Amino acid sequence: MNFINITEQKLRTFTYSIFKRMGCSDEHATLATDVLIKSDLRGIDSHGVARLSGYVRLWEKKRINPTPNVKIVHETPTTATVDGDAGLGLVVAPFAMKIAIEKAEKYGSGWVSVKNSNHFGIAGYHALMAVEKDMIGISMTNASPLVAPTFSSERLLGTNPMCYAFPAGKYPPVVVDMATAAAANGKLEIAQRANENIPSGWVQNRNGENSNNPNELKSGGSLLPLGSDKDHGSHKGYGLSATVDILSAVLSGANFGPWVPPFVAFLEPPTDPVGEGIGHFLGAMRVDGFRPTQDFKDNLDIWITRFKNAETIDPDKKVIIPGEPEYAFERERKINGIPIIDVVVNDLNVLAEKLGVEKLINQN
Amino acid sequence: MNFINITEQKLRTFTYSIFKRMGCSDEHATLATDVLIKSDLRGIDSHGVARLSGYVRLWEKKRINPTPNVKIVHETPTTATVDGDAGLGLVVAPFAMKIAIEKAEKYGSGWVSVKNSNHFGIAGYHALMAVEKDMIGISMTNASPLVAPTFSSERLLGTNPMCYAFPAGKYPPVVVDMATAAAANGKLEIAQRANENIPSGWVQNRNGENSNNPNELKSGGSLLPLGSDKDHGSHKGYGLSATVDILSAVLSGANFGPWVPPFVAFLEPPTDPVGEGIGHFLGAMRVDGFRPTQDFKDNLDIWITRFKNAETIDPDKKVIIPGEPEYAFERERKINGIPIIDVVVNDLNVLAEKLGVEKLINQN
Repeated sequence: MNFINITEQKLRTFTYSIFKRMGCSDEHATLATDVLIKSDLRGIDSHGVARLSGYVRLWEKKRINPTPNVKIVHETPTTATVDGDAGLGLVVAPFAMKIAIEKAEKYGSGWVSVKNSNHFGIAGYHALMAVEKDMIGISMTNASPLVAPTFSSERLLGTNPMCYAFPAGKYPPVVVDMATAAAANGKLEIAQRANENIPSGWVQNRNGENSNNPNELKSGGSLLPLGSDKDHGSHKGYGLSATVDILSAVLSGANFGPWVPPFVAFLEPPTDPVGEGIGHFLGAMRVDGFRPTQDFKDNLDIWITRFKNAETIDPDKKVIIPGEPEYAFERERKINGIPIIDVVVNDLNVLAEKLGVEKLINQN
Repeated sequence: MNFINITEQKLRTFTYSIFKRMGCSDEHATLATDVLIKSDLRGIDSHGVARLSGYVRLWEKKRINPTPNVKIVHETPTTATVDGDAGLGLVVAPFAMKIAIEKAEKYGSGWVSVKNSNHFGIAGYHALMAVEKDMIGISMTNASPLVAPTFSSERLLGTNPMCYAFPAGKYPPVVVDMATAAAANGKLEIAQRANENIPSGWVQNRNGENSNNPNELKSGGSLLPLGSDKDHGSHKGYGLSATVDILSAVLSGANFGPWVPPFVAFLEPPTDPVGEGIGHFLGAMRVDGFRPTQDFKDNLDIWITRFKNAETIDPDKKVIIPGEPEYAFERERKINGIPIIDVVVNDLNVLAEKLGVEKLINQN
């Protein structure tokens, strides 16, 4: 497995040109690029440019509308439902978060449920938009069904991530950004490439038996909810995933549960949809709606300091503050560039050729 | 282990008389009773009258104020911080939720962070207050430090529950009400009484090693976050618990992390508090702030029907809808009475004698 180091700027230029070829406006292409590159910068390699050709394939199948008319279809002073018009989630979700932030500026908080959208990249991007305004940011999305609820042998839920982000004082923001499955699909892909077994508690086979095979999903198996089994609280992971599904899709009128259209273009969406596209849920609350912002930040700094300095089991492993590793990646990669795995570079070069844009890098 | 069956009304009358003896007003005693009895009705025996003598001991130590002046200390149209004046959380949290609901009625949503409170009973009670108004209810609280973050050998977080409740149509509400630890303390107590080992992944000993001893917490051990270990996502359970702590306490000005005062009266609160009392976070969002209520309920009914009818691994184990077992308990116990374990009945009789109220039941 080889990595090729690419500067942030080069990756941005390339990604922008692909979105432009899809027919996105300058503004949308810039925004979608920003979301994807943020993921690569933050070390979440599975959700960055590695997915670019996946978005393109959905566009080729006309399942992504490059020129969506994203609009509010229902609202109160602090709530709204947005119709994403089948646009890129990378564009639709920031649009919705902007509305949440504007409502929070006026009324203290703002909440937007989104239907008729597509994959929105990393949840953290959207939540951090609120943090920049000294607000608490919340973002969630439902996703293609891969996870079996407790006791089920069927995949009925996505890895449905939820993110909560908080502005700190002297420290970077606290960002809890997590799939509600025990392990997300990206971890299985790493084991597949390395030809290694996975730990028990990540997946079950099609009969619901525990499996250590990273390819189990291809044979009808399922990911397990956070908690892995009933004894260890899988009903809680299932409950969290259900919460994301209901807030994102039942509340907005998107597809939910097993009806969520797949991200991969080679699988067709269900022919009996219960809603439109996939759903997101975005929220923003002004910190100073509760107490002076500086007081909150000072206390959060005390919280962080205490946790960073906790006694640990292994002296080499410190307690990690949620969001801290991603922040460290971002600082480092902005300076030193982003290592992209060679298979992704090849994939992007094939994409470049197909769409007639300059290759990311010439490889031989 | 014997159970004594007691009618709901008898348990209410008894509990009310105890709160009255503490000096609570009629209104507060009625409300606090309602929260506790709701827990017993819903089968969450650990959070009902089993805790009554614990509240009394905190009152005896002057750590619970029976006549609090609960008030808003900071607000915007949709956010507020409430000072609980060291009152019973059983009274303070419903006060705060009422504010959240009133704000939601006017502006679509309402969010209240609470400081200077005490244990608030089951999270589900408060969230369900919103559901009765066709709103989505959210409730959380921090709690005495018993849980070690990933990699830590120290207890820095409570079992910090979060609850999301949604109104359905023909089905009972969906109520996700969960501790963010792998297993809550109540499960350890059951194993202690039965003199049985507990599964791996629930607790670690004081050195951070996995333990199957249900008494480990008494020797400096810790509960583990949902996910149990890093491989299975314990950093996610830790992140969720951190989220609850920040929303409940860093946002309100309550104590957080290891500074949260203990529920048990024999342990003194930290002498270097970082805030006031314990903290809660309550929220309400009008369903019709997003789409017509009936559309939401119809879709949630489709969701529930699909999940209830999922293929299961074991034909004897159906997929459970969050909140369904508690609803079934409530219907059954309202008719047939509430089975109270004999040690709790004895404890309540001792309490009755001490405070000079009529005993719950005469035992010999």
